[in-house]
Amino acid sequence: MDHHLAVKIVLDGFKRSLKSASKVFNELPEDDLLQEIVPTKNSGLYLLGHLIAVHDNMFPLLGLRDSLYPELIEVFIKNPDKSELPKPSIAQLKLQWEEIHQLLISNLESLTNEQWFEKHTAVSDEDFITEPHRNRLNVVLSRSNHLSYHIGQISLLRK
Amino acid sequence: MDHHLAVKIVLDGFKRSLKSASKVFNELPEDDLLQEIVPTKNSGLYLLGHLIAVHDNMFPLLGLRDSLYPELIEVFIKNPDKSELPKPSIAQLKLQWEEIHQLLISNLESLTNEQWFEKHTAVSDEDFITEPHRNRLNVVLSRSNHLSYHIGQISLLRK
Repeated sequence: MDHHLAVKIVLDGFKRSLKSASKVFNELPEDDLLQEIVPTKNSGLYLLGHLIAVHDNMFPLLGLRDSLYPELIEVFIKNPDKSELPKPSIAQLKLQWEEIHQLLISNLESLTNEQWFEKHTAVSDEDFITEPHRNRLNVVLSRSNHLSYHIGQISLLRK
Repeated sequence: MDHHLAVKIVLDGFKRSLKSASKVFNELPEDDLLQEIVPTKNSGLYLLGHLIAVHDNMFPLLGLRDSLYPELIEVFIKNPDKSELPKPSIAQLKLQWEEIHQLLISNLESLTNEQWFEKHTAVSDEDFITEPHRNRLNVVLSRSNHLSYHIGQISLLRK
């Protein structure tokens, strides 16, 4: 797919941030990932699960397919780290991280330029007429910023 | 300026992140901003200065004008927080933050669509032929991600 330059820039930026995040998650010992970034705040494990749940949710939001692990939404989006809900292990989350991103990136890479500028599923046809920027490109850009925000935090677990 | 949708999306995203950052900096008591985010890592003051220095450097990088405070580069980019270099006060940095961003945003808003897709000053004419994505849009997008990364950290200073 030969993308519009702006699409290429946004998609490359998202892929670059995902790569940095994978690197941090893979380099951190499991014991460190279990720690809170700062006392009383989110743990590395929670942020890993949170990012997976948010990115998995991009499939339906972008009209690509159903989420792979919708059960993660309850644990990692609707509820905070300190909820008593049982959480998957880090090993399991790391497998889901890889699986979801491989599928997401290949889905995004196959979108046409036209599809990138089409509305996402959370905006109505009527609203899209007056707010034409609420398209797929905008979703990926805003998820990139969200990802960077949390990578900044997770990086603090490195000694 | 009626911008290309992709330009609008990237510029709006950058402005939104700057607004969040201003909110965090303004809400945090000065004493908290002086603290390290986590022990041995950067302080809130250093990150405030670092973001100002990096964004001030966007003026020459984007070919807009000279930096306003090039002396900040030595303290907040070339050297780490723990250098013995004297640092400006938080009050002074907050004034520079406002000044630089007002000027930067008005400069960015007045760029034409064509200018957004022109090369930035750190890429040669030759390289731009094979790497046409190294344009102003890419710089602003990558600075947005950098900004989000550090907002994520600074937010951890909130009680």
